[in-house]
Amino acid sequence: MLTKNKIKLITSLSQKKNRDELGIFVAEGTKLVLDLATFFHCSLLIATQRWFYENKKIKSDEQIEVEDNDLKKISNQKTPQGVLAVFLKPKNQWTKEFLVQKLSLALDDIQDPGNLGTIIRIADWFGITEVFCSEHCADIYSPKTVQATMGSLARVKVYTVNLVEFLQICKNELPIYGTFLNGENIFDKQLSQNGIVVMGNEGNGISAEIEKSVNQRLLIPNFPAGQNTSESLNVGVATALVCAEFRRRT
Amino acid sequence: MLTKNKIKLITSLSQKKNRDELGIFVAEGTKLVLDLATFFHCSLLIATQRWFYENKKIKSDEQIEVEDNDLKKISNQKTPQGVLAVFLKPKNQWTKEFLVQKLSLALDDIQDPGNLGTIIRIADWFGITEVFCSEHCADIYSPKTVQATMGSLARVKVYTVNLVEFLQICKNELPIYGTFLNGENIFDKQLSQNGIVVMGNEGNGISAEIEKSVNQRLLIPNFPAGQNTSESLNVGVATALVCAEFRRRT
Repeated sequence: MLTKNKIKLITSLSQKKNRDELGIFVAEGTKLVLDLATFFHCSLLIATQRWFYENKKIKSDEQIEVEDNDLKKISNQKTPQGVLAVFLKPKNQWTKEFLVQKLSLALDDIQDPGNLGTIIRIADWFGITEVFCSEHCADIYSPKTVQATMGSLARVKVYTVNLVEFLQICKNELPIYGTFLNGENIFDKQLSQNGIVVMGNEGNGISAEIEKSVNQRLLIPNFPAGQNTSESLNVGVATALVCAEFRRRT
Repeated sequence: MLTKNKIKLITSLSQKKNRDELGIFVAEGTKLVLDLATFFHCSLLIATQRWFYENKKIKSDEQIEVEDNDLKKISNQKTPQGVLAVFLKPKNQWTKEFLVQKLSLALDDIQDPGNLGTIIRIADWFGITEVFCSEHCADIYSPKTVQATMGSLARVKVYTVNLVEFLQICKNELPIYGTFLNGENIFDKQLSQNGIVVMGNEGNGISAEIEKSVNQRLLIPNFPAGQNTSESLNVGVATALVCAEFRRRT
């Protein structure tokens, strides 16, 4: 049975401070829940009788069967999809030695939860398994971001770090890439197979403090070069173009 | 003065049938309104005294100065930006002879207004000036789509067509590209400088009827190839990756 206390707990998880305090977050929908359950510890699984019947078993500390109407009370979706689960936030650890082999992403104050989720999905598509968020990024565990990752959060490790310090630690051993209007055309530039690609805030781009650590300045050219076109690309789109160009070369 | 009739007119334009009947649409915000005014006929310009003072003159059939509070009554934005304008829909015409020289986009039932706007912005960035929408695409003139184009609608001509018939007319003279899970790796494939790139619906991809006209099947590869990653890319992201690869080669 879905008690009042459980309803209160779950709706409280729409707020970051509660997610942080309890170390848990919510995900909804069959694909997302099944994807996350393969990597994350599920502490509470709430679903309809039909959902339990139709889907494979998930290991969870507690399971509650509910009616569709109950799901509506706790769902963040317009149309609840039969299942809602609470997962423990993973405790991801990184080491410099591990990063040195890889291409990773660093996000400098990405504000929009949907953009952040889309970027995680793009990272996953391009086999980038480590994403470093500055402390002022949108919260990766907000319901909107979790949903926008469409399950990619299961395969991509996301870390919240002091990005200035993080890049200062990395920059002596790894190329740090960033996109700028006065960078070098990415399609003509030599790219390494490892490194960290910094993507900037939606409105302001890469901040001055972070820019100091970027030692490889890239430009995504518009077409025809120099003509009056859109002023910018959405940050998710820009991330995809940069990742694709690194991976195309390998 | 902003009369009740004007308020009624403008709020009625959130519905497609009214936009179609009257042949007009709404845009908000300084950059967007100024961009559109260079190409479209402005029939009504509503702005605050401050906005008129700070911005260059726009030619329009009628101008109304309002208070911030009045703008709130007619705005589709959470925070109105000082200006709202009504423009006549352009009467765009295309000819096959013109298209044969160009790279263009065709959109098969893109449902989400935000995705449609983003795609127009991407087209603009990559110098694609003609976009053909199937009849079941989201309406390019809905307020949400117009805003999402961020002014690119001024530079990209958008046509609503019977996409099946359109592609049948074009396919004897132009390569028709589309992305499929069983297409050829776009990074390895020869690409022409002209052609039509078909992008499919968010959930279902390119429909069977449209697929018959596609004679160049592309695949955007994930990385590492064949590994379990995201199942798909957002349609805006996929559009950008395809456009970038065509333009990189030119």
